[in-house]
Order: sequence, then structure tokens, then C-alpha cells
Amino acid sequence: MPSQVVGQEEELYWLALKLVPGLGTRLSKKLVDRFRTPQAVFRASATELEGTGLSGALAQSVVSGCAFEDAATQQEKMRESGAELISIGDARYPALLREIYDPPILLFARGRVELLASIMLGVVGTRRPTPYGVAASERLAADLAHAGLTIVSGMARGIDSAAHKATLAAGGDTVAVLGCGVDVVYPIENRKLASDLAAKGLILSEFPMGSTAFPQNFPIRNRIISGMSVGVLVVEGAQYSGSAITAKLAMDQGREVFAVPGNITSKLSWGPNLLIKQGAKLVQGWNDVVVELRLQDRQRLVTQCRNRLNLQENSENATSSAFKSSELKGIENRAAREILGRCRWMLPLARASY
Amino acid sequence: MPSQVVGQEEELYWLALKLVPGLGTRLSKKLVDRFRTPQAVFRASATELEGTGLSGALAQSVVSGCAFEDAATQQEKMRESGAELISIGDARYPALLREIYDPPILLFARGRVELLASIMLGVVGTRRPTPYGVAASERLAADLAHAGLTIVSGMARGIDSAAHKATLAAGGDTVAVLGCGVDVVYPIENRKLASDLAAKGLILSEFPMGSTAFPQNFPIRNRIISGMSVGVLVVEGAQYSGSAITAKLAMDQGREVFAVPGNITSKLSWGPNLLIKQGAKLVQGWNDVVVELRLQDRQRLVTQCRNRLNLQENSENATSSAFKSSELKGIENRAAREILGRCRWMLPLARASY
Repeated sequence: MPSQVVGQEEELYWLALKLVPGLGTRLSKKLVDRFRTPQAVFRASATELEGTGLSGALAQSVVSGCAFEDAATQQEKMRESGAELISIGDARYPALLREIYDPPILLFARGRVELLASIMLGVVGTRRPTPYGVAASERLAADLAHAGLTIVSGMARGIDSAAHKATLAAGGDTVAVLGCGVDVVYPIENRKLASDLAAKGLILSEFPMGSTAFPQNFPIRNRIISGMSVGVLVVEGAQYSGSAITAKLAMDQGREVFAVPGNITSKLSWGPNLLIKQGAKLVQGWNDVVVELRLQDRQRLVTQCRNRLNLQENSENATSSAFKSSELKGIENRAAREILGRCRWMLPLARASY
Repeated sequence: MPSQVVGQEEELYWLALKLVPGLGTRLSKKLVDRFRTPQAVFRASATELEGTGLSGALAQSVVSGCAFEDAATQQEKMRESGAELISIGDARYPALLREIYDPPILLFARGRVELLASIMLGVVGTRRPTPYGVAASERLAADLAHAGLTIVSGMARGIDSAAHKATLAAGGDTVAVLGCGVDVVYPIENRKLASDLAAKGLILSEFPMGSTAFPQNFPIRNRIISGMSVGVLVVEGAQYSGSAITAKLAMDQGREVFAVPGNITSKLSWGPNLLIKQGAKLVQGWNDVVVELRLQDRQRLVTQCRNRLNLQENSENATSSAFKSSELKGIENRAAREILGRCRWMLPLARASY
């Protein structure tokens, strides 16, 4: 199909642009803004490129086309691990992420790319949580996912992993944004989680395929977590921790910051408590997040919830008309109970919306 | 001495006014406002009294002077237990308490009445705290007392007792406001605490000598705790608890509300966390309270602290000039260390003030 060939060729240009040595996120964004497509960037002369603010050496580097060999290798690796490319020009690129100061021009994705269109909430915290932190992040992630939010985190040890796992266990939607390539598993004990995420959720990264998880990548990665989310929920973290940095980033990006309070005798609750003093919203339960969302987001959650309910009611009706035998009453009751359980979520959401 | 005789006679009139059956706090306050002194109230005719809004029966009850017998008994009991009477007209009556909607016209006091002129902070919480609640109230009460605040509480089981005890142990000032007579010990296990409070702190009540601790007395008592304090610190309490009521009272009285956050999995932290969501100041340490005080109060704390430091320096100088022997170096060093310790408190206080 020609469209796919064009797609693959365009992909190659995007990858090449991403891989030009020394060309950072903001300069490559500038080039795309100026020349509209990566193809046009590579068709431009060195003089034209220098006119955009590139140094002579960097302009030469673009013109030479030296990045295309790496780009082809990347494309090969993407095919091997079933990864997709989402450029900043792609309609599937997360709308909120496009608004930040330094949006990545490319995202590598493995899994359910459609999740990028959902309402996302970052859940972040320490890699070495207390049992309280784990319990709080599990409960809140599951409840918030149940309410219709997509839980975004970094697949790190501790709070991140707890949030992803609890969301998957609750049948919710979750996105992991990595500080390495989407084909790299880090930390290694998260192999099972990574394959679950690729199958039922989404794995995302701006780092090329095969990239190692260098420590300096994590703050860069964190701006994506907060940037594509409506807000960031901090569960546990010391005063000067990665989560505190992410919260700061979220504030700079105009995102809501949420924090789970904890005992003042716990070092790891110092960060969230401090954030609350500084204006972050205190979160005791899922509805403390939902009530802070914009009206249109809350209405969207209600609609989603209603649709899920209808779906379930319809399938229940189908079930009850197909099997009228009394032996199946138990199953019907279970289904009814489950619907009632979902209604419990619906009501406060609906109330919060109007 | 004639002045004391006059004092005792006036006291008798105040007590009689307090004890007129059916005459509540607001009506008796109204009478004092109208007639200036309790003597003038009892000299007034029934018609004059009815003119103030009293019912015929109540006016008769005042005129009959039936309350004077009880008043004399009260005076006897006060002498026995060394209690003092502080009327709303007394210069020692707490200034902030006079401003509330329904200030008590009389306070019974046992102990250091001068504490009523200090900067007071209410510390309240559940009667059945967790170990965390006890630890938090102990640490905060001791630190805040160290910073120069007088810790006011209700001598109840749990948080109240922990706050009083920790303050006394830290050599700080503390006031217990009771829901019974100042000569009654309730709960009974607080016998030792009550005698410590009468000796080193202050016991206060608006209920006559010998009054039993009826449950309905506690909310009435709580308005005094918040009313004479610059703010109220809630340590632990369920959502609909006595501490929540006291916090509500404090807000209505225009007092600052402070709350110690806690784990969202702990029922007893639900109240404080909810208060923070509603606008109470989150307290991680003593300075979170101090920074919220009015400038003049903070300056007063700094002056107090400075005076304590000077006092200590002077006594150290006296010590060192009296004993120049090398054996006493150890004691001097300890004194110096203690002064350094106090400086640690001074600095942030001073910084917060300017």
C-alpha cells in the first residue's frame, strides 16, 4: 500500500532528524516549525539551516545525511519489537504534551497508542517506599483508573511499579514513560510488568530504541509524565527527591499537583506534606483528584462511566435472555452486583460535574 | 485589708449572678453590660430587669437573692482548694476570650493565673489516639512551648493529656480548661497531672466548684480553649469528632486552625487531613505554627526568647565568677551547650518576624 510506504519513508526522516548528533529537542522542534516536515529540513541548504540559528557544523551535520544509517537501524529495531512512532505532527500525539515548553518531537510507543487520547494522571513517588506508600499508591491508582483516568508513571521500582500493577489488576488503563528505549527493560525485575504494559497498556519513550537508562534521562522523562497529564499525584518522597522535581515541573507546566499526606514522623511523607503546604491538593481518596479536574474532563469521565455501565447492562440482558435457566441466577446476581458497584462510582462523579 | 474584703464581697456578687437558676451565659453577660457591676444587677428592680429582656420569673429569681447561699458555699470551696475567681471585668481575664460571641462571665482558676496573659495555643485531639498521635502531640507541644507558646488543652485522656505532660516535662507553660469544677479530677487517672498543672501551670473552668464532668459540658468548655487561643492545633480525630467541632468553633471565632497530617489509611488522621483540605494550615513542625501568628505575637515570642537567653547568660556568668575551679568546667560547658540549643530556636523565630 502506497500510504504505508509513504508512512515508512516519513518515519525514516523523523528518525533521522531525531538522531542528528548534537541537535537537541528544542532545535529540532524549531526546524520542524520552520520547514513544516522533516523531509523539507533535509532538503534545505546549509545556509538556510544556519538562518534558523544552527551553527555551521550542526547545519553540515544535517545536510550530510549521516543520521539516515542510524535511522534505518532504528526502524529495523522498531519492527522487531512492534514499536510505533508518534511524531509531534501526528494526530495521536498527546494534546497536552504539545503545549509544554520543550515537547519531544518523537515518541516511541509499544502497546495501546489510543490511550494517548485519554485523560491521563501522573502518579509518582519514591523507589524505596514504605508499606504505607505502596498501599496508598495501589489503592489510589486502582480507584482513579476505575473512575476513568489513565494512570501514567515511570515503571521505576517502588511507587511507580505499584501504581502500574494495581491499575492493571483493576482492569484500568496505564502508560509507562521510560528513561530508556521502549525495547529495554529497566529495572530488570520488571520484565513481567513491561510485557503486561505492552499488552494491556502502553509503553512510551522519547529515547531511541536500545537506549540505556542513564540517570540523566529520568528528569527528561519526568517532563513527559507531567506534560501529558492533567496533573501529578505524589505519593511518597523525601524533601529533595525526584518526585519533588516532577511536582515542580508539573507546576511550571501549569498542571495540577496532588499529594498524599502522611505521618510527620515519616521521612518519605515530608515531600508530599511540604507540597501541600505549598499549595498542592491534599488527596485522601480518588474524588479529591476528580473534583479538581476541568468541567469538560469531568463530564468526559461521566460519559465514559455511563457507556461502561450501558455496555455491561446490554451484555447482562443478552445473558439473561440467552440463559433463562434458574442455575444461572447466581451469575446474573453477580453481574447486577457489579453494576451496582460501578454506580457507586458514577454518582459522586456526576454530582461533581454539575 | 479593706480591699480584700471588698474583693471578697464583689466575688460573692459575681458568684451569685453566675448561680441564678436559669440565667445563662449570654443573659448574665447582658445584665453585666447593662448594669456595669453584679452588685448593681442585684440592686435593680424586677421591672428594670424585665426591661433587659428577662422573663418575669427569671427577674424574680434574681431579685429574691436565692443564689447567695450557693455563692457563699462556692466561696468556701474556693478557699479550701486555693481557687481564684476571674470575672469578665478583671484585667487578668484573657483578652481574646472577651471577644467571642458568648464569653463566660466568670472563670475559676487554680495555679499560675499570669499565664492568661501569655500567647496561648489550643492543642486538641482524640481520647483514643494512635502511638503516632501521641508522639506527634508530645513533640509539637514541647517544641511549641519551647518557642514560648502556652499550650492549652482539656486534660482529657489521649492527645490532651499527652500535650499537657510533654509541655510540663519540657519546662513549658500549659493551661487545662475543664468541663467540671477546678476542684474535680476527671478522668480520675489524671490526679497526678492535675496536681502538677495546679502547681506549674493553670487549671481553668467556667463550671462552679464541685461540678461534675457532664458530657454536655465539653463542647461548652471547648469554646474557651479556642476562644482564648490564637489558634487550635488538631492532632488526631475522626471526621465527626470533638476536635472537628473545636476546629469549627475556632474558625467561627476567627482563630487560625492548624492540623497535623497523617496517613490516609488511618481513621484518626481523616479529621486533620479533611481540615487541611478545608483550609487549615498543615503542621510538620513548630515553625509552621509560628509563621502564621500575627507580627506582634511573633515579635513578643522573640523578645521572650531573648530574655530567657539573657537570664541564662547572666546566671552562667554568676556561676562562672563564683566557681573558678577547673572541676566545674563541665557544668559551664553544659550551660553553654544549653544556650546554644536555645539559640537554635531563636534564629528561625527572629527570621520569621522581620
